[in-house]
Amino acid sequence: MSYHHPENDPKYIGLNVNAGIEKPDAVNVDSVKRFLNKGKRKILSPDQYLREILKGNITILSQAVTLVESNKPEHQKVAQEIINKCLPYSGKSVRLGITGMPGAGKSTFIESLGKHITGQGGKLAVLAIDPSSERSKGSILGDKTRMEELSSDPNAYIRPSPSAGSLGGVARKTREIIILCEAAGFGTIFIETVGVGQSETVVHSMVDFFLLVQIAGAGDELQGIKRGIMEMADTIVINKADGDNYERAQLAAAQFRSALHLFPPTLSGWNPRVLTCSALENTGVSEVWEVVNEYIESVKETGYFKNRRSDQGKYWMYETINETLRNNFFHNTQIRHKLPIYEQLVLTEGMSSFVAAHELLNNYFKSIGNE
Amino acid sequence: MSYHHPENDPKYIGLNVNAGIEKPDAVNVDSVKRFLNKGKRKILSPDQYLREILKGNITILSQAVTLVESNKPEHQKVAQEIINKCLPYSGKSVRLGITGMPGAGKSTFIESLGKHITGQGGKLAVLAIDPSSERSKGSILGDKTRMEELSSDPNAYIRPSPSAGSLGGVARKTREIIILCEAAGFGTIFIETVGVGQSETVVHSMVDFFLLVQIAGAGDELQGIKRGIMEMADTIVINKADGDNYERAQLAAAQFRSALHLFPPTLSGWNPRVLTCSALENTGVSEVWEVVNEYIESVKETGYFKNRRSDQGKYWMYETINETLRNNFFHNTQIRHKLPIYEQLVLTEGMSSFVAAHELLNNYFKSIGNE
Repeated sequence: MSYHHPENDPKYIGLNVNAGIEKPDAVNVDSVKRFLNKGKRKILSPDQYLREILKGNITILSQAVTLVESNKPEHQKVAQEIINKCLPYSGKSVRLGITGMPGAGKSTFIESLGKHITGQGGKLAVLAIDPSSERSKGSILGDKTRMEELSSDPNAYIRPSPSAGSLGGVARKTREIIILCEAAGFGTIFIETVGVGQSETVVHSMVDFFLLVQIAGAGDELQGIKRGIMEMADTIVINKADGDNYERAQLAAAQFRSALHLFPPTLSGWNPRVLTCSALENTGVSEVWEVVNEYIESVKETGYFKNRRSDQGKYWMYETINETLRNNFFHNTQIRHKLPIYEQLVLTEGMSSFVAAHELLNNYFKSIGNE
Repeated sequence: MSYHHPENDPKYIGLNVNAGIEKPDAVNVDSVKRFLNKGKRKILSPDQYLREILKGNITILSQAVTLVESNKPEHQKVAQEIINKCLPYSGKSVRLGITGMPGAGKSTFIESLGKHITGQGGKLAVLAIDPSSERSKGSILGDKTRMEELSSDPNAYIRPSPSAGSLGGVARKTREIIILCEAAGFGTIFIETVGVGQSETVVHSMVDFFLLVQIAGAGDELQGIKRGIMEMADTIVINKADGDNYERAQLAAAQFRSALHLFPPTLSGWNPRVLTCSALENTGVSEVWEVVNEYIESVKETGYFKNRRSDQGKYWMYETINETLRNNFFHNTQIRHKLPIYEQLVLTEGMSSFVAAHELLNNYFKSIGNE
C-alpha cells in the first residue's frame, strides 16, 4: 500500500459524517483515556490495537469497534488510525447481506448457518444495520440472547447495530467495522437488516452476496417488507420448512422460482436460487452455505467479485462526499431555521420546489462564504 | 397562492442545476432575443407567454420549453419567470410514467393509447427522460416520426428529451415542462423512459401512475431492463398480443399475475394489474386507460393521490438541494483536479474510501471559504 497516513494529522480529526465537517480540534487525550478506562481496560496505542486485532483478540476488537461507533472527534481520531492500520489486512472475507422480516425466523437462521460455518472451522462476525429511525418498524439484533449458542461460540463475534445516527452514518461505521473484523481474521461477515427501509440498498453496496429469508404464505407475512428487495436477492431462502409447514414451504419455493424467471438477468450473470430450510431443525441450512460458496467461486472466476469490490470502494467515496455535503448543509444554523418554513411553502402554498431549494442554497453558500 | 415571486430579482438567475450555483449575472437581453429570434419568432414578455400558454398556443409553449431546456443563465431567468407564472394553473393533469425496452413496442403503444385519449376529447403531452449518458443503451423519442399519427394530432404535444445534462438536470427540466404543459391545458402527461438506467426511479417520483410495457417471452427480450422496475409498476401491459403471439402473451400475463402476488403490497393499497393488448391492432388499449382511471379515482378517494403529490414536491426540493450541492462540489476546480487521483488511490492503492472523501472535502471547504 503506497498511501501514507500521517499520524496525528489534524485533518483526520472529526471524520464524523453525521456532524458534517468538524473544525480540527486539539485532541483531548484525557477524554479518550476516560472513555476506554470505563471498564478498567488498558489503554493501547494504535499499533498495539493493530497487533492485538491481528491476533484475533476479541476484547480489543470490541474496544476498537466502540471507538468507531463513538461520535466524539477524539474517539474518531483514534478509530481512524486503527482502521487505516487494519486496511492492508482487510478484504479477505466473504460478506453476506441477510435480510428478512421479523417473524421469518432470521435469528434462528443466522444461528443455524453460523454454527454450520464455525463447525467447519470458520470464523464468523455478525453485524447489523438498524438506524434508529427504522428501529420502530421491527427490532433487530438488539439482544444478543436471540442467538444464544452463537454468542457463546469463541469463533463468532456478534455486534448489534450502532444505535444512533443517520443511515449514512451507521453504514459508514459498519463498513469500517467490517475492516476491523477482517483484520481480526473473520472469514465470513454477516450483515443483517430487517427489510423495511432504505438499509437494504445500502447493505447491497457493501456485500458480496445478498440473501433474503422468507416464509411460506405470500399474504400477510409479507406485510411491511419493502418492494424491490426481492429483485436484489442472490438467493431466497424459505425458512420454517418443517412439520405441517413443509408442503407449504415447497409450494412457496416453486412459486418464487417461477417468479424469478420473469426477472431480468443479474449483473453478475448468476441465476438467483430459491431454497427451503428449517433453521429450527437444521435441515437445508448447509445447502444454503454451499450455494453461497458456489456463487463466490463463480464470480471470482469471472472477475465480477473483484470488480464489484472496487466499484463499492469508489461508490463509498462518493457516498461519503454526498452525505457530508448534505449534512453540512442541513446542520447549518440558517438552514435549520428556514427549512421548515420553505417546506411549508412548497407543501401548502404552491411554491415551486426548485425556487425553494435555490433560495435555501443561496442562503447557505452566502453563510459559509462569510465564515 | 400567498407566495410572491418578485420579478427581475437576481436571485432567480442561474437556477441551472447542472452548473451548480451561478453567480448572479446581468441578464443579456440581446442573447435572449437572438435565441428566440432564430425562427423569426416574436419576443414575448413572461406575461404574454403566460397568456398564450393558457390559451393552449402550442408554438409559444414550445418556445417556452426551449427556454427551459437551455442551460444559459439568461434563458433560465426568463424560463423561471414563465414557470412561476404557470404554477398556479398547473397540477390538474394525470401524470403517467411509461417504461419498456426498445422492442416492446412502446412507441406504437403510446401512439395507440394516445389516439384513444385524444379521441375522447382529451389533450395529451408526451415527454421523455433520456439523459445522454443513458442514450447509448437504447434510443428513445429521438424521432417524432416514430409516432406519426399522434404527432400530427392537434390535441397531442410530443417533445423529445432534452439532449444534454445529468439525469438530475434533465429530470428537473422535465418537472418544469410538466408545469408548462398543464398550464396549457394538457390533461394527461406521459413521461417515457427506456427502462435501462436510473431514470425510472426519478420518473416514479414525478408521476401518479407507473406503467411497464412488456412482451411475451421472459428470456432474451428482457435483456437489459433494470431489476427492480417490475416492483415499481402499477400496471404491466403485455403488448403484441396478436396473431401467432396471442397465446404466448396470455400465458405471460398469467405468469406475471402470479408473480405479482408474491410481491409485498403497494403503499397506495392498489393491486397492480397485468393486462394484454395489441397496440398494432388497437385491441386492449382502451382497457389500459380504464384501469388508469380506476386507479386515479381510487387514490383520489383515499387521499393518497394528494399526499403523494405533496411528498413529491418536498422530495424535489430536497433533490434539487442535494444535486446542487453535489454539482457545486464536483465542478470545483480543485476537486476536478484531485478527484481522479483519489479515485485511483481508492481503486488500486487500498486507500480508505472515507479518508479519500474527507481529504477532498477539506480541500473543497477551504477553497469555497476563501473565495
